[in-house]
Amino acid sequence: MPEATLHPAMPATRADLARMIDHTILRPDATRDAILRLCDECIEHGFIAACVQPVWVAACATRLAGSQSLVCTVVGFPHGANTSRIKALEAAAAVKDGAREVDMVIHHGDLLGSDPGAVERDIRTVVESAKSASDAAQIKVILETAPLPDDRIIAACRAAALAGADFIKTSTGFHAAGGATEKHVALLRSHSASASRTGGRMLVKASGGIRDIDAARRMIAAGADRLGTSASVSILAGLNS
Amino acid sequence: MPEATLHPAMPATRADLARMIDHTILRPDATRDAILRLCDECIEHGFIAACVQPVWVAACATRLAGSQSLVCTVVGFPHGANTSRIKALEAAAAVKDGAREVDMVIHHGDLLGSDPGAVERDIRTVVESAKSASDAAQIKVILETAPLPDDRIIAACRAAALAGADFIKTSTGFHAAGGATEKHVALLRSHSASASRTGGRMLVKASGGIRDIDAARRMIAAGADRLGTSASVSILAGLNS
Repeated sequence: MPEATLHPAMPATRADLARMIDHTILRPDATRDAILRLCDECIEHGFIAACVQPVWVAACATRLAGSQSLVCTVVGFPHGANTSRIKALEAAAAVKDGAREVDMVIHHGDLLGSDPGAVERDIRTVVESAKSASDAAQIKVILETAPLPDDRIIAACRAAALAGADFIKTSTGFHAAGGATEKHVALLRSHSASASRTGGRMLVKASGGIRDIDAARRMIAAGADRLGTSASVSILAGLNS
Repeated sequence: MPEATLHPAMPATRADLARMIDHTILRPDATRDAILRLCDECIEHGFIAACVQPVWVAACATRLAGSQSLVCTVVGFPHGANTSRIKALEAAAAVKDGAREVDMVIHHGDLLGSDPGAVERDIRTVVESAKSASDAAQIKVILETAPLPDDRIIAACRAAALAGADFIKTSTGFHAAGGATEKHVALLRSHSASASRTGGRMLVKASGGIRDIDAARRMIAAGADRLGTSASVSILAGLNS
């Protein structure tokens, strides 16, 4: 099977590229004005989602109502060291507030420690809570691929697939070791089909440090289905320019 | 009134200094073994508290049962951009799991934006939730003093005091701009009495980048009542050595 059928091609148009981008502001000091501007840019450019902290979900759902852009939020962000119960409550509340996509952070202490089964249980708790709030909810599982050894990344992919996650995502964007790399995107892609509950493979979201059209091209070529970035508007402007 | 009666003196003994230190591991990839070792060091050295992520509260409460060391945890950590409802649920759950002290992060977007009253409401929601779980619960309010202008730090002090917080704390320890400085500790101390609901002043916790006995001395001289650090054992060893 030729490579082109496995990995999506780089979109030829700005409209198609925008449908691959979660337009993102996760800075904890972002003001309401900045969040509303993010929403307006989503509508103007057709980004698939506005990705914001939980405190902004309701405001974004109102601003984006009737548009083609979804609300995406984060849960247990950025450390993932909250209890599963609180992550699950946060996910369900966000979905009820209007989020359609929920990006949850795994607990890396369990992934690195003596109880890897706990990672799968934690993800499953969040997946089930979010999907009980809405069948349409999509769950992305965030690792920090930059500091993790490959065998732990593969273990996390397997846990996410077994737990019924829809996406696997490279990075929070807040780790000192950095964000997405082509190598890690390709690794997630090659392990994204393992034991998926839905039968299909998980999609791959690349995030962290994607700041220009060249980086976007490299991530898509490596296997990313979705990009998370704050530089979305300038990335779009870089296509065909 | 002489300065010495306003600011606590540097403790003369290791035992007294240990009662000012929250022995801390907040790395999200800390394993259970590391957390249990932290607890054992608390017991051995007499630190006032073990400060850990919420996922470890129950394990620490078990390990520290019958000792002189409390469990301290963090809420909405480190971004503070969760909804007040989820922060309140996380605080109450942690207190029920055995935490006696809860360090919550404010929402900096509201502090910098157009709705400063929201900061006080957010803190009050968490304070009331934690104290309804246990009267003995103590709430510390975490700012990121390093990147904030002084007038916003003062506004946050006022909001925390009005909302009934017990402590005001300099930093999460995870902000790129850095942790505690003498200047910011002194600023918190000088605004820690404003409008306190309890009548007394809030205590001041210095955290972030306190790695040796000289830094500990400087923070205490500047007005810190409590230190949060991961270097607690070596700091103690530096006293009178």
